[in-house]
Amino acid sequence: MDGTPKTEDALTALMTLLQDDIAACNAVIMARMASPVALIPQLAAHLIAAGGKRLRPLLTMAASRMCGYDPAGGRHVVLAACVEFIHTATLLHDDVVDESALRRGQASANALFGNQASVLVGDFLFARSFQLMIADGSLPVMAILSGAAATIAEGEVLQLMTQNDIATTEAQYLEVIHGKTAALFAAAARLGAVVAERPALEEEALDSYGRNLGVAFQLVDDALDYSADQAVLGKTVGDDFREGKISLPVLVAIARASEEERVFWRRTLEEVEQTEEDFAEAQRLLLRHGALTETFARARDYGAAALAALAPFPDSAEKRAMEAVVAYCIERAR
Amino acid sequence: MDGTPKTEDALTALMTLLQDDIAACNAVIMARMASPVALIPQLAAHLIAAGGKRLRPLLTMAASRMCGYDPAGGRHVVLAACVEFIHTATLLHDDVVDESALRRGQASANALFGNQASVLVGDFLFARSFQLMIADGSLPVMAILSGAAATIAEGEVLQLMTQNDIATTEAQYLEVIHGKTAALFAAAARLGAVVAERPALEEEALDSYGRNLGVAFQLVDDALDYSADQAVLGKTVGDDFREGKISLPVLVAIARASEEERVFWRRTLEEVEQTEEDFAEAQRLLLRHGALTETFARARDYGAAALAALAPFPDSAEKRAMEAVVAYCIERAR
Repeated sequence: MDGTPKTEDALTALMTLLQDDIAACNAVIMARMASPVALIPQLAAHLIAAGGKRLRPLLTMAASRMCGYDPAGGRHVVLAACVEFIHTATLLHDDVVDESALRRGQASANALFGNQASVLVGDFLFARSFQLMIADGSLPVMAILSGAAATIAEGEVLQLMTQNDIATTEAQYLEVIHGKTAALFAAAARLGAVVAERPALEEEALDSYGRNLGVAFQLVDDALDYSADQAVLGKTVGDDFREGKISLPVLVAIARASEEERVFWRRTLEEVEQTEEDFAEAQRLLLRHGALTETFARARDYGAAALAALAPFPDSAEKRAMEAVVAYCIERAR
Repeated sequence: MDGTPKTEDALTALMTLLQDDIAACNAVIMARMASPVALIPQLAAHLIAAGGKRLRPLLTMAASRMCGYDPAGGRHVVLAACVEFIHTATLLHDDVVDESALRRGQASANALFGNQASVLVGDFLFARSFQLMIADGSLPVMAILSGAAATIAEGEVLQLMTQNDIATTEAQYLEVIHGKTAALFAAAARLGAVVAERPALEEEALDSYGRNLGVAFQLVDDALDYSADQAVLGKTVGDDFREGKISLPVLVAIARASEEERVFWRRTLEEVEQTEEDFAEAQRLLLRHGALTETFARARDYGAAALAALAPFPDSAEKRAMEAVVAYCIERAR
């Protein structure tokens, strides 16, 4: 593709910086998703090989190095694999939940293998992640990751409860995305300070970096679901709308809606009675009320908070790369 | 009900012996399934309150006491709750997998709340279980339970792969039930020796007790799916048949089948083309070939192995109760 945006270079820079870690992490992932039950590595590989950006494990490895962890120890790589396993497990279970047909630009795992296999292989990866942590042996690490896993599930259930309810408040929406997305970003980054045995303040700074980055990431994701080029986004555009998922773009548009527009949102999102043209109409309404602009602006605010959280750390190549990741998350695919 | 079988008394005796532990374990379960997200305790309570026999956590508590663990320490109760959470999570995910309409005699969780909620609340309970273990702080305990969780998932995936395949071997079937059922029984019992800090030989003896008991339990379960009184069994009879699940009763009948009968099994289990009368015909074929008798006989063999595994332990009320549980598992609901 021509005109790859500069922010894509930022991510490439991070991946170049961490290329040895990434190779080592991939090796752990491949080794630990092995099973005598053939369908497990087969299905896991389908998703893992599809090659998301591996943003979350990158955060663990970059933060570890930024905190001065000696990479020869190798724990940062193992914990990054744990993070990726948890993320992959939630994606597999999300595919069941969302009945989405595309994931990372490929047919989703459940479309290919069925809901049953997605649930069970997700469970397997989740268990494997805990086995990896236990082999690492650090109780604080385990507490962070198991806490994140519980919070992710809570966020997803809350999302289910607010689905199809246009009376959902912005506070509830933020609680959902703090759970379903930001919790794992926060944990992934925090682990860097933990393996490097840095003081609690640095742990909290990295947690804040990850949490704010995660919220920004999800806000952009939710905006892209109404605005992106499907080929670039690598997942079906309009999924959230078709499922009646309540996201910030929609909440902004509903808050600013006329009576007639409210009738539209009630029909399409609450009753999920939709015609072919409704998604285009939804996009027009978001545009009319500046809902995407507002959502991107909010994402930039969270991005700024993520950057601010890195202030206590001295300058380093890793720190600069982690700063660049913030811009990448906000500007991606636009 | 009149004529409650004697074996039911055996289970009652165990529950009376452990009544303080059971109350404490229930309190941990109630406290730890709490969440600000209302649907989570609601759905979890639906399943947990439905009141299965809690056989697995009972094994942990009985084995701990049999091994001389001081119950004032309370760890046996917390770990029993971990075991029950893992079991409940797999039940919730099983309901998604099996699309079964009944579980413990009530509408299954997914029939009431939807597949999505079942998956996510299962994930939550799984994460909670790990949080409980981490608070307990023993790496060997965590390794046993996370290993069991991985093995359960492997067993369930293998079951999925053998489903609708009448060429499945008995060895594959045994691998499935070792994974999906016996692994957690084995872990639950083994934990008793671990918390009591008993030597490896006792750990292995209890593992063997639990594993053999688990296989016996599943064999009986699979036989009951073709023979039980639905009201007594508390789940839909004929589920396995309708899904084309390959279990020992069916494997025995197929091994002894005429050509014509093989055509029947191929149509009903592989192609899952079934008429109203087919289940009754399947039951007749099992009867003709003594498949249920054979399955119950095999269950008794595993039961005998479970009893033999308890030999190294001195006589105690707990040991006698654990012996009685074997008889209960084999004779239940007949």
